[in-house]
Amino acid sequence: MKETTITVIEKVKLKNPVLIEGLPGQGMVGKIAVDYLIKHLEAQKMAELYSPHYAYYVLVNKSGAVRLLRSEFYYWKNQEDGNDIILLTGDTQPQTIEGQYEVADAILRFAEQNSTKLILTIGGYRTESKEEPQVYISATNLELLKRASEIGIKTSPPGSPIVGTAGLLVGLAKLRNIDAACLLAETPGYLPDPKAAKSVVKVVSKMLEFNVDLTELDNEIAKSEQIEERMRKIEEQRRGSEKIRRKVEEEKVSYIS
Amino acid sequence: MKETTITVIEKVKLKNPVLIEGLPGQGMVGKIAVDYLIKHLEAQKMAELYSPHYAYYVLVNKSGAVRLLRSEFYYWKNQEDGNDIILLTGDTQPQTIEGQYEVADAILRFAEQNSTKLILTIGGYRTESKEEPQVYISATNLELLKRASEIGIKTSPPGSPIVGTAGLLVGLAKLRNIDAACLLAETPGYLPDPKAAKSVVKVVSKMLEFNVDLTELDNEIAKSEQIEERMRKIEEQRRGSEKIRRKVEEEKVSYIS
Amino acid sequence: MKETTITVIEKVKLKNPVLIEGLPGQGMVGKIAVDYLIKHLEAQKMAELYSPHYAYYVLVNKSGAVRLLRSEFYYWKNQEDGNDIILLTGDTQPQTIEGQYEVADAILRFAEQNSTKLILTIGGYRTESKEEPQVYISATNLELLKRASEIGIKTSPPGSPIVGTAGLLVGLAKLRNIDAACLLAETPGYLPDPKAAKSVVKVVSKMLEFNVDLTELDNEIAKSEQIEERMRKIEEQRRGSEKIRRKVEEEKVSYIS
Amino acid sequence: MKETTITVIEKVKLKNPVLIEGLPGQGMVGKIAVDYLIKHLEAQKMAELYSPHYAYYVLVNKSGAVRLLRSEFYYWKNQEDGNDIILLTGDTQPQTIEGQYEVADAILRFAEQNSTKLILTIGGYRTESKEEPQVYISATNLELLKRASEIGIKTSPPGSPIVGTAGLLVGLAKLRNIDAACLLAETPGYLPDPKAAKSVVKVVSKMLEFNVDLTELDNEIAKSEQIEERMRKIEEQRRGSEKIRRKVEEEKVSYIS
Repeated sequence: MKETTITVIEKVKLKNPVLIEGLPGQGMVGKIAVDYLIKHLEAQKMAELYSPHYAYYVLVNKSGAVRLLRSEFYYWKNQEDGNDIILLTGDTQPQTIEGQYEVADAILRFAEQNSTKLILTIGGYRTESKEEPQVYISATNLELLKRASEIGIKTSPPGSPIVGTAGLLVGLAKLRNIDAACLLAETPGYLPDPKAAKSVVKVVSKMLEFNVDLTELDNEIAKSEQIEERMRKIEEQRRGSEKIRRKVEEEKVSYIS
Repeated sequence: MKETTITVIEKVKLKNPVLIEGLPGQGMVGKIAVDYLIKHLEAQKMAELYSPHYAYYVLVNKSGAVRLLRSEFYYWKNQEDGNDIILLTGDTQPQTIEGQYEVADAILRFAEQNSTKLILTIGGYRTESKEEPQVYISATNLELLKRASEIGIKTSPPGSPIVGTAGLLVGLAKLRNIDAACLLAETPGYLPDPKAAKSVVKVVSKMLEFNVDLTELDNEIAKSEQIEERMRKIEEQRRGSEKIRRKVEEEKVSYIS
Repeated sequence: MKETTITVIEKVKLKNPVLIEGLPGQGMVGKIAVDYLIKHLEAQKMAELYSPHYAYYVLVNKSGAVRLLRSEFYYWKNQEDGNDIILLTGDTQPQTIEGQYEVADAILRFAEQNSTKLILTIGGYRTESKEEPQVYISATNLELLKRASEIGIKTSPPGSPIVGTAGLLVGLAKLRNIDAACLLAETPGYLPDPKAAKSVVKVVSKMLEFNVDLTELDNEIAKSEQIEERMRKIEEQRRGSEKIRRKVEEEKVSYIS
Repeated sequence: MKETTITVIEKVKLKNPVLIEGLPGQGMVGKIAVDYLIKHLEAQKMAELYSPHYAYYVLVNKSGAVRLLRSEFYYWKNQEDGNDIILLTGDTQPQTIEGQYEVADAILRFAEQNSTKLILTIGGYRTESKEEPQVYISATNLELLKRASEIGIKTSPPGSPIVGTAGLLVGLAKLRNIDAACLLAETPGYLPDPKAAKSVVKVVSKMLEFNVDLTELDNEIAKSEQIEERMRKIEEQRRGSEKIRRKVEEEKVSYIS
């Protein structure tokens, strides 16, 4: 493979589709959100993307089957009046600068071929832990930002760049005159963060006017909070015994001198 | 995007244009100088350059609008007899060796398409801080150096290579038989240096015989001197308290032993 | 050379060939196994592979002859009913991500041109040293895994990715609808490990129903065990004298204070 | 520039030319030797090679003229019966793996276009300093090694790879059926080493049966020995004062305790 390649699995005709991207990144916010939507909207796989710019290893699943690192496109047909949705998830992001641009380009060509009307990319925005993570939007044009603001979505604080596919897709979409926006949820970023993902899913479902049950995401949040709690305790114990060790040490020192 | 791409925004016919390049680099001398010229000559944007060799993130502005890293070409029509001017500024330089050569090449093709007669690149030359930073010239041919010397511009001291786009543009221009010169202003280099930029702007306006008001650049210099002054004081205080801390420490040590 | 190139040395017509790959990697398991098969099946060279993604140095042999780093394809004609075999060995693996994908692709094109029915890749699986290293299989499809399990080969534990050519060949073969499997033998991995290689050779000869004399491999194992034994002793001595040194040191310290 | 490019300066017809390559490397042996031959054979420039795989800076000479990093081909017409010579020198070697292969390839295409009969590459072989550095040969074929041995040139000890252009040219020449050999002179390698270069020049002139005056190379050797002597003395002084400093320190320590 010398170039990024998209293999179509099911050819479908979509109604004014919106592409929602969520790849691994800060707090895994994008991937958790999109994987949740795929599962709970019961979206169907339509294509796979492979790239020589992904890391050069393969994954083995429980039954021993091998597969390359890849990204996957799923579709969901809206039974109401609203837009159909293409969902993009994946294992990884490209490993080189040129690879990042090439893969983003391949995704946009696929979006164009499917007459995509809007691209939404999802990521994390690094901050302290928050009870209800805020979601910020930035976009290719002011019209989009205005519409987002009307349904209560805050505009991204300026200054910090958006790194990786979530950023490049929006930047490159502009050059192709496709509307695109990036949704960043606040996250401490060092652990998978379903709470931040939930904030984004709520915003997305509001923007695109569809319903999705959030119960299972709440379960994931509860689990991740238990894990964090356990890690906090281990850390506390470690610090406690560290303190004791140091005190003993200091006493030894004073004793020696 | 697989290759560096230039998007034309306004097609213009220019009279013997001189292209002046100023991208981020030592002391930001080139970028400050060219951005100042763009603003004060009221130059108009004619093209944008995008490249898959730029870093893979996008910028968000105050209103939440997203854009790729890019370089921009502006033009200024000379109302007198002299040359029209193309001004090249940008956010960044390419991140890889091959990217540096590819982007410099794309710029030169654009210069050729616009029948550019001369290319001037601007950069910083690392030295101690000086009251009036000197500007040095180096060029593709001796004729250019002679003309520069006649209006009092000193020739670059030999030895230190010119790194990045400011250097490559001149080197590659020679292969295309376009006259080109590089102007380097003395700068300590670690902070944006409007004083060095002013020295270059004066030299450029003298070479190309146009007038530009330098008042606002003087204001920037005053501001940057205040910032430096403040940093110097903070550093002094830090050193002072460091001294005290060490003395206390030493006394403790002698006390213990 | 701008692309990976395969030079055919002998054009042969093979009967349902199976390609077995063994390049340098963990414990050199793959390379030792395939080199052993080449020698003991008296396989003949059919092609050489060169790549600009290999390291940029050349090798000098005992007589002073220079050659590029390369991979080599050998063939073995099965005198019985079973499959003919193509054996792939080499000096090295590609040095960059894109190189890994390009070379794996070139190998697969060669496999297709020779109507390869199955690809087996060989590598090491990092664990503690074992008396009889286990061999694990993973594959492009469940049918293959089932057949392997029927002759007693265990399925790879999930989770750990397979890095390099041994992994990519299987992952990319799937996209071309060629059956492929990866055999990983347990190995501590830090030294060339003929014991792990023997485990794999036994599994391969069982899968493909051919006979190969293992005596010489046993000799290599005996030799490598002697080397390990010697290294263990040196290490023990080093630790012993280190202990003494520390004790002396400590006594000095107590003496001084 | 997207590819390595060779610009022909003078088109010449050469008689059975031998190409001798000497680029920067260990002890600068190759570059010193070839530059010396260019000067003392009064060879003429025939072509220049530029590459986007060279470092991205330009050089400024004493008069302020700018030029890209490059390699240069010179030719020398043999007035006797023997071979004409093409000499290849340069500023640098390519900075990436793929660049090394691409540039070596471009050189070989140029060699083929000029009907080159033999390629000799020159480099350094890392050892302790020697009064008369030995020259070792390795080559694409045994015939060449035999002829070299007949005039007293020793064959390279096996094992250590030949890194960079000096190695790749020979390795890649073999694939194009051009005879090629690499001459490595013993050198400590950390400083430019005219003594090693002299050993090579003597071997080359013997192989190709031409005469070149070595007086000026002897002067360079004398100069470089003076420099080494001076550096040795500085080092000795540094060690001396270091010893004193330590002794003072130790006495202080005993005093304190």
